[in-house]
Amino acid sequence: MLSYSDSYSLIERNIAQLSVNSRPVELYEPIQYILSLGGKRIRPCLALMAHNLFSEQISDAINPALGLEVFHNFTLLHDDIMDNASKRRNHDTVHVKWNENIAILSGDAMMILAYQLISKTQDNLLPRILSLFNKTALEVCEGQQFDMNFEKQNTVTVKEYLNMIRLKTAVLIASSLAIGTITGKAKKDAIEKMYLFGLNIGIGFQLQDDYLDVYAQPEKFGKNIGSDILSNKKTYLLINALSSRNSKLVKELKQWMDIKNSDPDAKIKGVKTIYDQLKIGEITENTVKKYFDKGLKYFQQVDIPETRKENLRSFVNKMIIRDY
Amino acid sequence: MLSYSDSYSLIERNIAQLSVNSRPVELYEPIQYILSLGGKRIRPCLALMAHNLFSEQISDAINPALGLEVFHNFTLLHDDIMDNASKRRNHDTVHVKWNENIAILSGDAMMILAYQLISKTQDNLLPRILSLFNKTALEVCEGQQFDMNFEKQNTVTVKEYLNMIRLKTAVLIASSLAIGTITGKAKKDAIEKMYLFGLNIGIGFQLQDDYLDVYAQPEKFGKNIGSDILSNKKTYLLINALSSRNSKLVKELKQWMDIKNSDPDAKIKGVKTIYDQLKIGEITENTVKKYFDKGLKYFQQVDIPETRKENLRSFVNKMIIRDY
Repeated sequence: MLSYSDSYSLIERNIAQLSVNSRPVELYEPIQYILSLGGKRIRPCLALMAHNLFSEQISDAINPALGLEVFHNFTLLHDDIMDNASKRRNHDTVHVKWNENIAILSGDAMMILAYQLISKTQDNLLPRILSLFNKTALEVCEGQQFDMNFEKQNTVTVKEYLNMIRLKTAVLIASSLAIGTITGKAKKDAIEKMYLFGLNIGIGFQLQDDYLDVYAQPEKFGKNIGSDILSNKKTYLLINALSSRNSKLVKELKQWMDIKNSDPDAKIKGVKTIYDQLKIGEITENTVKKYFDKGLKYFQQVDIPETRKENLRSFVNKMIIRDY
Repeated sequence: MLSYSDSYSLIERNIAQLSVNSRPVELYEPIQYILSLGGKRIRPCLALMAHNLFSEQISDAINPALGLEVFHNFTLLHDDIMDNASKRRNHDTVHVKWNENIAILSGDAMMILAYQLISKTQDNLLPRILSLFNKTALEVCEGQQFDMNFEKQNTVTVKEYLNMIRLKTAVLIASSLAIGTITGKAKKDAIEKMYLFGLNIGIGFQLQDDYLDVYAQPEKFGKNIGSDILSNKKTYLLINALSSRNSKLVKELKQWMDIKNSDPDAKIKGVKTIYDQLKIGEITENTVKKYFDKGLKYFQQVDIPETRKENLRSFVNKMIIRDY
C-alpha cells in the first residue's frame, strides 16, 4: 500500500516531468515556476492514496491527481494577484516576478492544463470525474469571492464563515479523495463516503489553521504567531469572539482592531487575553474535533478491510495536530 | 435546415436561460452582464450549423455550442483586463464596471462554466470533444501571449503574425465547426475537413479585419477607419509594409510611427499613401482570398449533398466581404 511518502515521491517525479516548457516561454515559465515551489502536495497524495484503497493500478490515478495539484496551484496564482501578495512559499509571486498580465494568462493556461490532466482517464470514468471536478472548481471560485466579500463586510456570521471555507478549501480536498475513489473503480456509496470524509476533514484543517495562528507553540509552528490578529482577519476565532454577548470584551476587542500602528506584540497579547476570557480557544478546538471526528466516521463506513485504510488514516491523523 | 438567423435565435434564447444568477452575486453578475452584451454569436452558430449538416437533433448540439460562446466571452473578459480596455461593445468592460479582482475571478468562473456546458454531451462523444477543446483553449492562451509579446517586439515576421492569429482567433472557429461535426456524429474525415475549413476561414477573417481597418468604405464599416494605423498596431498590413525592400518608404513609414501627437487624419492618409505605393492592399486581398478559397475547398470535400451545405456556405460567404 502507498504511504504518503510514496505518494509524495510519485507526484514530485511526475510534476518534474510535466511538459510545460513549450512556447511562448512567457506563458509556460510561470507555470513551471509555481509548480516547482513545492508544498505538501496534499490533494494529489490524497487522490493516489484513496485510489490505492481500491486498486493496485496506481498509474490509472496519476494524471487526475496531477490535475488536482495543477488546479490548486492555479488558484494560488490568481488568488495572489487578487490578494496583492508578494510572496508564496518564500519566493516572489508570479505577478511580482513577471507582471500581472502574465500572471492572469499563465493562470488561465494552468486551469486548462489541469483539465487536460484530469481528462486523462478511462473514457467510461470521464463523465463522472469531469462533472465532479466542474462543480468543485466553480465552488472554489465562489469561496474565493465570499472570502473577498468578507474583507469588506462589517459582520460575518459563523454560518457564513463555515460555508466560505467549505467552498474555498474543503470541496477540493473532498473531490481529491472522491476522484481517487472513482479512478479506483469503487462503487457509488464509497465515492460519496470518501467525499464526505474529505469535506469534513477539509473544514477541520482550515479551522485548525485559524486556531494555530493564535495558539500554536512558536517553535513547532512554521508561521509567525498572531499574523491573523495583526491583520484583523475574520477567522473562526475573531468571528466567534465578536458574536459574544459579553459586550464589554467585544468593545475592548473592537478597540484593538481599530488601533492603527499599535505595538504588534501588545495587540497579539491583548486580543489573545480577550479570546482566553471568552474561551474562544476551547470553542475552536471543540469545533475542529467535531469536524475531524465526523470525517473519520465517514471513512470508517467505507466498506474495505481496515488494514487497507492504515496508510491514509495515518496520513490524515498526522495532519490533525493533537499536540499544539 | 438551420439558417444563421435560426441558429442565432436559438443561441440567444438559450443564453438568456443560462442559470448564472447564483450566489455570490459579485461572481455571477459580471458573467450575465458580458453575455448580455450581444455580438454575432459566430462560434456557437457555426457549431449548430455544422451539426445540422449531419443531424436533425439540434438539441444535441446546443450545450457544447453555448460552451464555445461562454469560452469566447471569457477570453474577451480577461483580454480586456490585459489590454486595459475600457469599452466592450459600447459598454463598460467588467473590470471598469466592477473591479479587476472581480474581472479575474468571474472570468475564471466563466471558463469553468464553458467546460460544464461543453461536457453536456453524450458520454461516448465526450473524450473527443474535450480533448479538442482542451487543445484549442490552450492555443488561444498561447495566441494571446504572442499578441502581447508582439507589442514589445521590434520586428514581427509575417510567419510569426500568421501563427499568432491562427492561435488567437482561427483555432476556436475551427473547433466550433469541428465540435458541431462531432455532436452530429460525423466520421473522422468530415471532422478533420470541417476543422481545416474553419482554420483557414478564421485566418482569412482576421486578415480581412486588418484590411478593412484601412480600406473599408466608412459608411459600410462599423468601426473607425485607421484606428490600427493610429495605434501603430502590428497588423498584417504594417508587418508587410515594414518588411518591404523599398528602404525609402519604410523609413518614411517609421517616421509616421514615431511622431507623437500627429494630426490623426494626416497620419492615416500618410500611412495609407505608403501602403498604396507598396501595394499592401492588393497583397492583403490576395492573402485573404487564398485562405478563404483554401477553407472553402476543404468544405467542398466534406462528403454530404450540396443542398445540405447551402445555409452554412451562405453564412460564411456573407462574412466574406467581397465588396469593400
